[in-house]
Amino acid sequence: MFATLDGIFHPSSIAVVGVSANEFRENCMGWLPRLLSFGYQGRIYPVNPRASEVMGLKVYPSVGDIPEPVDYVIFNIPARLTPQIMADCAAKGVKAVHVFTAGFSETGKEEGRRLEEELSSIAREGGIRVIGPNCMGIYYPKEGLTFFPTFSKEAGSVAFVTQSGAGAVRLVNLANERGIRFSKVISYGNGCDLDGTDFLDYLADDEETEVIACYIEGVRDGRAFFEVVKKCMKRKPVVILKAGVTEGGAAAAASHTAALAGSQWVWEAFFRQTGAISVESLEEIIDVVLALMHFPCPRGPRVGIVCRGGGFGVIGTDSCEKVGLAVPSFTEETRSQLEKVLPEAGASVRNPVETALGLAGASQFYQEGLRMVGADPQVDFILIHIGVDVYGGVGLSSLAEQLEQTMDILIETVKTMTKPVVVVLYPGARPDALAAVAQAQQRCLEARLPVYPTIEAAAKAVSRLIQYNKFIEEIGRELVH
Amino acid sequence: MFATLDGIFHPSSIAVVGVSANEFRENCMGWLPRLLSFGYQGRIYPVNPRASEVMGLKVYPSVGDIPEPVDYVIFNIPARLTPQIMADCAAKGVKAVHVFTAGFSETGKEEGRRLEEELSSIAREGGIRVIGPNCMGIYYPKEGLTFFPTFSKEAGSVAFVTQSGAGAVRLVNLANERGIRFSKVISYGNGCDLDGTDFLDYLADDEETEVIACYIEGVRDGRAFFEVVKKCMKRKPVVILKAGVTEGGAAAAASHTAALAGSQWVWEAFFRQTGAISVESLEEIIDVVLALMHFPCPRGPRVGIVCRGGGFGVIGTDSCEKVGLAVPSFTEETRSQLEKVLPEAGASVRNPVETALGLAGASQFYQEGLRMVGADPQVDFILIHIGVDVYGGVGLSSLAEQLEQTMDILIETVKTMTKPVVVVLYPGARPDALAAVAQAQQRCLEARLPVYPTIEAAAKAVSRLIQYNKFIEEIGRELVH
Repeated sequence: MFATLDGIFHPSSIAVVGVSANEFRENCMGWLPRLLSFGYQGRIYPVNPRASEVMGLKVYPSVGDIPEPVDYVIFNIPARLTPQIMADCAAKGVKAVHVFTAGFSETGKEEGRRLEEELSSIAREGGIRVIGPNCMGIYYPKEGLTFFPTFSKEAGSVAFVTQSGAGAVRLVNLANERGIRFSKVISYGNGCDLDGTDFLDYLADDEETEVIACYIEGVRDGRAFFEVVKKCMKRKPVVILKAGVTEGGAAAAASHTAALAGSQWVWEAFFRQTGAISVESLEEIIDVVLALMHFPCPRGPRVGIVCRGGGFGVIGTDSCEKVGLAVPSFTEETRSQLEKVLPEAGASVRNPVETALGLAGASQFYQEGLRMVGADPQVDFILIHIGVDVYGGVGLSSLAEQLEQTMDILIETVKTMTKPVVVVLYPGARPDALAAVAQAQQRCLEARLPVYPTIEAAAKAVSRLIQYNKFIEEIGRELVH
Repeated sequence: MFATLDGIFHPSSIAVVGVSANEFRENCMGWLPRLLSFGYQGRIYPVNPRASEVMGLKVYPSVGDIPEPVDYVIFNIPARLTPQIMADCAAKGVKAVHVFTAGFSETGKEEGRRLEEELSSIAREGGIRVIGPNCMGIYYPKEGLTFFPTFSKEAGSVAFVTQSGAGAVRLVNLANERGIRFSKVISYGNGCDLDGTDFLDYLADDEETEVIACYIEGVRDGRAFFEVVKKCMKRKPVVILKAGVTEGGAAAAASHTAALAGSQWVWEAFFRQTGAISVESLEEIIDVVLALMHFPCPRGPRVGIVCRGGGFGVIGTDSCEKVGLAVPSFTEETRSQLEKVLPEAGASVRNPVETALGLAGASQFYQEGLRMVGADPQVDFILIHIGVDVYGGVGLSSLAEQLEQTMDILIETVKTMTKPVVVVLYPGARPDALAAVAQAQQRCLEARLPVYPTIEAAAKAVSRLIQYNKFIEEIGRELVH
């Protein structure tokens, strides 16, 4: 099974059925230019009975007319034509197909259901593995495969398996911006043949993948899915967004991918028993993945918060304690040390502490303050909040300069600290903040510091990481990091 | 009391105690340039015993040396010097002061507490009202008063009363970006004299204010605060972020503004009895305020979702139902109508519906689809989700063009619809999306359509609006809108 799926990710040749004479028609870039622009190095065969050449490539009337072997075929044709093409593929000896086409069982209609069954059965008899229908297929940067041209061409170690194609586009875009790179992303839609269980089984063994994230609406075989997640969890963390948990959500899932969503309590038991990390949004997937990648699990839940703006300290403390983290008071010793380096006024030394990160950026005492917090025995990890909104604007030097200076000190200091550090950088509402914050985030990520848009998001992610590591300790696998 | 507080917002003259010879020193714009740059039209008197002129204005050695009456004084001097200046102000007949200076009771030290008491007592005896200490003071665009130079100079109808100065800066910046303008914003820190209760009492009667938002860490007199919120709620909605609700949060509040946070169950009872809208973050304040401003309360909780990307429909349905909204199936009639105008494939007609908002932007059928959903009797309001991430990138026309065309159709169509509409526009992770999304948001706001960054945020805000209106109906005040 591993070899079969691994083969799908390494096709020597791809046929695209349903190219038009003008692949850019209707402003919608077709599958051909997506492959070409992304750097796929194998042979590409466009197929269309009514065209002879497109983008400099010879067009074949049918799959059967292609003179050489074809490993992988992308279907971009109306649903009613798919059985015939599948039969052509079977005759040709194609190994796997990606059916982009929708209009099958997710329509909730007898006709769609029948068509999907027909398609599956032709594939099964012909020994063809199917991704889809009703999906975006594969993004595998290492091989130059993609379903969206703006995705990063750089490969990483995170895999994402999803029933939602649009969700995959958004997740990869968002994740790319936050410094995450992918090993393999698979959008499999209705999953009439290969489904989440198969892909997870493959990814458990895939050496290119260190973290697995999942968006699922439902599974056909609950027990098999349960077992494969347990298998994965013994080797690498699995983050799952289970959609369709409410009554309406389950009905929506049925008409999106014909998924059987299952009851909420079954899924609660699933998460409890597998230890898979449960999240509620695509953003939360990214938050948790970042923690898994860049945040060595702390020894305990006690956080030392270094912030800019006392109100954020109070809200942030609430956010931390609501998800099970603790914000203890610093020791007497730390507090008296902090008092020596903090400005007289407006700075609490309890925890959270405001360590001289003033309107004009970080002062000379910022570094000392950070070190003192890091050294406090009451604290297991450090959360540093940078209040970008109060930078610049009131100053002569730009927000970008102030933020850069803060980052210089922060990154240098963190290098000398032994406890894990997480950074919160509000994206900043002011237009002049956007580029500066993106730059600061980039520097943090290069220093392997995970960056979050809010204290709430950071707290949730860290809390889940701690929970995950506790589970892993219990089942006896090595900790992350 | 109203006249006293209203006077504070309309000072004929302001003295700034603690200007330096160079008000731009240390990259931190002083209070003088903030007032001058923001357009304050009254007389301004800088005070400093060791300077003679700053920014073209004569500097006075002390408040007493100013030859004309002074209404309002800003203290920007070390805490230990404040009692003397307060005594000078009393002798001069000053009406109100804003003590920016920190280092009082919030330090948790005997010295700070004593200093704050001394300051209060001098003010009380001299008949001076105090904003602060340890706060940012007033942002009142109509009068040209501000504590941050980048805030909008345009006046609006939302008031914000807050114990957090940095929170105020962030909230106003974020709210400005999302189309919200303010009547008055007051950051009052420790509130040694005037506190949240006083400002709410004033705002209840303030004709410039239609919506009141609040960030509070604690109140001195719980009963008085309860009564004033009840009074406000009879006239206008009150949104409250109560910070310091966890044990650690309460401790943090004590060292931020010396606030007594109170127990969680007391606050739960408070919200239940006053009907004030409870939120958990600054972002949620903005979400609710937007709904109060631009979203006529729907007749019920049943939402029709029009989305781009089936996965978002499923996640979005979960988000709605988790907060008490319902996502019912459309009627048979609506479904069969929708089927006629939707593309054959990949579009559910149940609810959520994907109405031909394709990769290339809105198709010719988008308008018809929106209208059908709006006309469905099962639906009380409409949530339109625009999947910005799948725009552009795969097309020849830009994301901006596609989004603009979608907005043309959307705004024109919504004008003819009778049910309330809320729009969800993901900010978009790709840099090319930012400006386009900001522009689209602007157009929605001009058409009085509230815009949210996620379906989750929109659902929460609408759910709170419905709850608020239910409460108001029960107490017998007119509904919002």
